[in-house]
Amino acid sequence: MSFAERTPAYRERVDSALGHWLPPATTHPERFHAALRYAVLGGGKRVRPLLVYAVGEWLGLPAGRLDGIAAALEIVHAYSLVHDDLPALDDDDLRRGRPTTHIAFDEATAILAGDALQSQVYFVLATDPGLGAAAAVRRQLIVDLARASGADGMAGGQALDIDATREVEATVAGVEQRYRMKTGRLLEAAVTMPCRLLEPDDATLMTVAAGYGRAIGLGFQIADDLLDVECGPDVSGKPQGSDRRNGRATLPDLIGLAGARARLDGLRRDAHEALAGAGPRADGLRWLGEQLLAGPALPRDG
Amino acid sequence: MSFAERTPAYRERVDSALGHWLPPATTHPERFHAALRYAVLGGGKRVRPLLVYAVGEWLGLPAGRLDGIAAALEIVHAYSLVHDDLPALDDDDLRRGRPTTHIAFDEATAILAGDALQSQVYFVLATDPGLGAAAAVRRQLIVDLARASGADGMAGGQALDIDATREVEATVAGVEQRYRMKTGRLLEAAVTMPCRLLEPDDATLMTVAAGYGRAIGLGFQIADDLLDVECGPDVSGKPQGSDRRNGRATLPDLIGLAGARARLDGLRRDAHEALAGAGPRADGLRWLGEQLLAGPALPRDG
Repeated sequence: MSFAERTPAYRERVDSALGHWLPPATTHPERFHAALRYAVLGGGKRVRPLLVYAVGEWLGLPAGRLDGIAAALEIVHAYSLVHDDLPALDDDDLRRGRPTTHIAFDEATAILAGDALQSQVYFVLATDPGLGAAAAVRRQLIVDLARASGADGMAGGQALDIDATREVEATVAGVEQRYRMKTGRLLEAAVTMPCRLLEPDDATLMTVAAGYGRAIGLGFQIADDLLDVECGPDVSGKPQGSDRRNGRATLPDLIGLAGARARLDGLRRDAHEALAGAGPRADGLRWLGEQLLAGPALPRDG
Repeated sequence: MSFAERTPAYRERVDSALGHWLPPATTHPERFHAALRYAVLGGGKRVRPLLVYAVGEWLGLPAGRLDGIAAALEIVHAYSLVHDDLPALDDDDLRRGRPTTHIAFDEATAILAGDALQSQVYFVLATDPGLGAAAAVRRQLIVDLARASGADGMAGGQALDIDATREVEATVAGVEQRYRMKTGRLLEAAVTMPCRLLEPDDATLMTVAAGYGRAIGLGFQIADDLLDVECGPDVSGKPQGSDRRNGRATLPDLIGLAGARARLDGLRRDAHEALAGAGPRADGLRWLGEQLLAGPALPRDG
């Protein structure tokens, strides 16, 4: 059985973990808890959790130790989408083919739901018994996730998106830094965080994971650009070309479609080479990386 | 020298810690980092940090071990104000006598700055060497703060604020629960989190701290209500009667000014009694509690 065949079971695992870590919609205040669940449990490809489980296979870690990390990363991703879709940011009404949280509820609820989701992430990492990790390991996981999602990572990258709408002269380096921060850092965390569960630490292995994570982190966003240019909302589940519509330069804008495809090919090779010595247990991770960097040929994360 | 005389030095301590934990405004993206600093470093009474230091005096903990907790609580408070002031929530243009973050910058920047500030809080608790705490203690501090600020605490309480604008029939119990969640839980955390630094745990002491924290947590919000009713923006630093203007029932609306003052008196007594056996080292905490629950006579937190 291949990793591809195991993906439905992994998605069920993480959905079950997410359902566990989000209070029931009957919890007071009910409408608010309904919004939390709506934001997270409404589908999506679960790319970050799949990366976590694929890394787990490579490292020989049982899936039960990974559920908390997978859920935490997905909750961070979900909260960032809730805020990114707001009228003051990308102003998107549709996500994953259904109304965004602020449309289904209201703006105030969406803002606060995102905030509460972010708090919950650290509660999960600090308390999930399944992690089977000492407090020192939890501490490191919390540092990893806070860094990947904060001012120097995802949130800072989204802020660069705002600046980019005012940018007079975009550069390739600037665009790639923006991509690495807003998208790459969290994907990289999905690859490196499971490595923290290994005791003792394995610095070589962490270097391999970080190299692979960096390549797919940037590549995933470039593949998304190509998708936005070449496909419609039926495939991406969101309005076409959100970046372009919002006046932000994309990599294809700067170096053309062929240039962006070549850059993506290079990152695909980087990811492959990072895992060169990783053995057959990394086959799932290799396959998943190929999927994520395949560009418009495949369905994408919401 | 009394605690009152030490408050300027404690405010300087926490401002210095906040300055340390927020990247310089020259950090890329610069405008974003400027917004983070604007949101946090723009004054305010530093009520939560002062509580932390007052508890530290009671417990005999050196202030250097408390700076990280004080800064983390103040950053959570600051991020919640940034989001609460947004047009979709309270729509306030002024805070602490100057433009709110979304007015000084823009809405998108304010939303993302709040998000990044929240991430930073967990980074501080996980890494501040000054805490002098084992990873297990950091883990507990993170749990405390995530719970106090999430769906079951501050964020959930703000969501109740939204529901309250639609409420047909407000009850005293409902209003008090809303106050406890949106304001009380974080103040209570300011009192209980420093107790986590004691080793071994002291369950009796934690009960004392929690009792005191619960009384001042609710009392502080009621005192704020009375201030809103009886005073103007010169004292509160924000437009008068934000709750009333937004159509939310306050405790004085339900039980009258005299009733609310009586409730506040009761909570003041509760706070005092909670510390009955705490000895003279808790004098600072006693004094601070009196200040926080004094109602309109004194300047307030922004």
